[in-house]
Amino acid sequence: MVLPDIKKNFADWYQEVIYQAELADQAPVRGCFVIRPYGYAIWELIRAELDRRIKETGHQNAAFPLLIPESFLKREAEHVEGFAPEVAVVTYAGGKKLEEPLVIRPTSETIVYYMFAKWIKSWRDLPLKINQWANIVRWEMRPRAFLRTTEFFWQEGHTAHETKEESEAEAELMWKEYINLAYYFLGIPVIAGLKTEQEKFPGAEKTYTFEAIMPDGKAVQMGTSHIISQSFAKAFNMQYQDREGNLRYPYLTSWGTTTRLIGAVIMVHGDQKGLILPPKVAPIQLVIIPIFKKGIDNKPLLEVVETIAAQLKQQNIRVYIDTDKHKTPGAKFYWWELKGVPLRLELSARDLEKGEIVIVDRVTLEKKLIQLAQVEQEVISLLAMVQQCLFMRAQKKLESLWYKKEKLTNFGRALREKGGLYQTGWCKNPECENKLKEYQGSIRCLLDTHEFEQCFNCDKKSVVDVLVAKSY
Amino acid sequence: MVLPDIKKNFADWYQEVIYQAELADQAPVRGCFVIRPYGYAIWELIRAELDRRIKETGHQNAAFPLLIPESFLKREAEHVEGFAPEVAVVTYAGGKKLEEPLVIRPTSETIVYYMFAKWIKSWRDLPLKINQWANIVRWEMRPRAFLRTTEFFWQEGHTAHETKEESEAEAELMWKEYINLAYYFLGIPVIAGLKTEQEKFPGAEKTYTFEAIMPDGKAVQMGTSHIISQSFAKAFNMQYQDREGNLRYPYLTSWGTTTRLIGAVIMVHGDQKGLILPPKVAPIQLVIIPIFKKGIDNKPLLEVVETIAAQLKQQNIRVYIDTDKHKTPGAKFYWWELKGVPLRLELSARDLEKGEIVIVDRVTLEKKLIQLAQVEQEVISLLAMVQQCLFMRAQKKLESLWYKKEKLTNFGRALREKGGLYQTGWCKNPECENKLKEYQGSIRCLLDTHEFEQCFNCDKKSVVDVLVAKSY
Repeated sequence: MVLPDIKKNFADWYQEVIYQAELADQAPVRGCFVIRPYGYAIWELIRAELDRRIKETGHQNAAFPLLIPESFLKREAEHVEGFAPEVAVVTYAGGKKLEEPLVIRPTSETIVYYMFAKWIKSWRDLPLKINQWANIVRWEMRPRAFLRTTEFFWQEGHTAHETKEESEAEAELMWKEYINLAYYFLGIPVIAGLKTEQEKFPGAEKTYTFEAIMPDGKAVQMGTSHIISQSFAKAFNMQYQDREGNLRYPYLTSWGTTTRLIGAVIMVHGDQKGLILPPKVAPIQLVIIPIFKKGIDNKPLLEVVETIAAQLKQQNIRVYIDTDKHKTPGAKFYWWELKGVPLRLELSARDLEKGEIVIVDRVTLEKKLIQLAQVEQEVISLLAMVQQCLFMRAQKKLESLWYKKEKLTNFGRALREKGGLYQTGWCKNPECENKLKEYQGSIRCLLDTHEFEQCFNCDKKSVVDVLVAKSY
Repeated sequence: MVLPDIKKNFADWYQEVIYQAELADQAPVRGCFVIRPYGYAIWELIRAELDRRIKETGHQNAAFPLLIPESFLKREAEHVEGFAPEVAVVTYAGGKKLEEPLVIRPTSETIVYYMFAKWIKSWRDLPLKINQWANIVRWEMRPRAFLRTTEFFWQEGHTAHETKEESEAEAELMWKEYINLAYYFLGIPVIAGLKTEQEKFPGAEKTYTFEAIMPDGKAVQMGTSHIISQSFAKAFNMQYQDREGNLRYPYLTSWGTTTRLIGAVIMVHGDQKGLILPPKVAPIQLVIIPIFKKGIDNKPLLEVVETIAAQLKQQNIRVYIDTDKHKTPGAKFYWWELKGVPLRLELSARDLEKGEIVIVDRVTLEKKLIQLAQVEQEVISLLAMVQQCLFMRAQKKLESLWYKKEKLTNFGRALREKGGLYQTGWCKNPECENKLKEYQGSIRCLLDTHEFEQCFNCDKKSVVDVLVAKSY
């Protein structure tokens, strides 16, 4: 089935490409999706890479309970206000009504901090640097696969430190790890900076964000890193003896990123024919299609194909040979293009006789005839090229959507109608910030530039540049 | 703190070693535990190994929702009877009462099969071989860390096949994979066979089990593999067009193993000093303790230690150097023995002068002086030795607990008072099986031997040998 027009109907294209490429499917529970093997394999690749970096930066994985006593959420005032409206609540269990309802974790700060308070007794227990890979539930009224789902997967880092400086450095470090992941692994350029007071994590002192810009000009918040400071430590009575023997509260951070990343990969790189997966997140990096012919012995062809595959697997390239006899080569091209496989080799008996093979990359879709002897070298260099090219294309797109505007009156209408990124000045007054809602926009992050004299909304001086956009 | 006597008070020893070695901690939610980094690292090693085998045997990972409509559970009569008493139920979400309550998955057959019914349309969609790594909730009245917890982690495989034979081969294959994992990775010998009709999975035709025997003579069911057959396919209207164009129901299997495996590792291998981890599941396989001396320069010592560590890491050995200056060597020995690290190197300035180093394995605890040049070779061979030796020790223990008895009157009292494994004959009548409850025992599995003429309980002929034991 042909995909909806990606330019005219981006939202439908997104939904359809997910179903047709078998990344995910709607589940019979409100707002929930099944992540199918192809989609889950992408998540496994992202998770393995990030997990490696999380461990290399000195964190350890652990597992905290799914269920949290309702009262825990209430210990930190901002926190409960932020999360109470979207939690799922267990009221019966084991055939009985529970004395205290349990919420399914919408995030784990409260239960993690309850345990931290048990574990952190002395400065020698610090820093404590924990991460967990978990499922999260937040009741979602407008679900969209990967981007907004009632249940989603993420990692959440939780750390405790002796000094404020150390906790700030930690939150910044992990934020930078995320940005690297986006750039060098997902091939996605991001805008990154602090959130405003209104948009920060409920209970945090500061929140760093990194956001990708979709082709329709809307931002996707890819993840956040929070300087939690001491508010929660006080709420959970988390005290330790410092080097001088005094009782102190540790400084906390938390940081997380989610299966949303998959949604961003789909949107940022895809085209009219379907997905385009950057090689680093592609479960299959190369598909080999032997062009079988009727009436001849196809065995020699298959043998060559298998030799090539074995050779490439030696180089840790993820290869799949499509030998399905019920499908035409054309149908196979269509299918693997839909699935966004970065490279394709086509081998016919005729080319084989000449010692040649056709290679096609998913970005240009141009067919190139190469020597069989050069396959390995060519595949390795084309994989790197596709990864790089997708990033550069996304970077160009991001730049083309970036406008500098002095006043909301100059960009409000365009923001609402066409999306886009608007760099402008802000006085830091939440009332001006709220004005953006009328145009379906919000401040995605603060920038470290100061190019504008006046606030985008009022007559006051601008204190900081901000980026304004619509968001998913 | 000294551990409780492992011989006299095994249950207390188990609980204490888990807390003291920091494997897990009690959570503030009934029956739930936090898996701490050291315990979670063991799970990560087991999971990586099993995941590799699951993929190599042609299965793909996916993710199905945590929440299941209550009505789904009721579609298969035996299934709901089996699980309804222990589910946790979400009745409120997003600030509203739900029209239909949702249960937190106690297992995922129902929701997986709902999706399978959408996906399986033709024989070409078969076999469908899916696995998921997930958290499970079953309300637990008598929790025990790792062995019985309200929330636990597992993998659950779900497959659909064209023929009964194929599905039977699948269930057997994965059961054998589990048994291999127990033997060669966890170092645990198991008893393995079919469950009785009463003890099989609710809704399955047959259930294969594999069970380990603890030093106190009780069995731990480590995992199961089920021939589900067609009952669920019918309940979920899962029909496909076969090769002849007729509508058919596929044959299903499911199979799973859990974080219980960690509990079995702790119990089977541990001793009075704490854990003993088989090298393959040990997050740290070797700890190096430089013996610092006051008043001299310890730098050369540290340099040698770091060189050794680097060399061993090259061989993919998991090494930790304990340079803590606030602890005596004795305190370090105590700590790493409690944590069950298979090997320890101790390097003093005096030994270094002579080009020697002390190596100690966690099983014998004998100190052996070896040449520095031989460290790598010695470590590799000792790691293999510890793995093998732990298995053989457990095998011997299992054999020593295995009795052959004709009549319940001969072994009932011993079963109740001392535990142990009793091979006996059974007429296949559930009434005789139920008689075992009076002695706190049950049939753990059927055997493929037939050594007894009469049923252990009644005067009828024995149809099959069975193994009887108490269980966790």
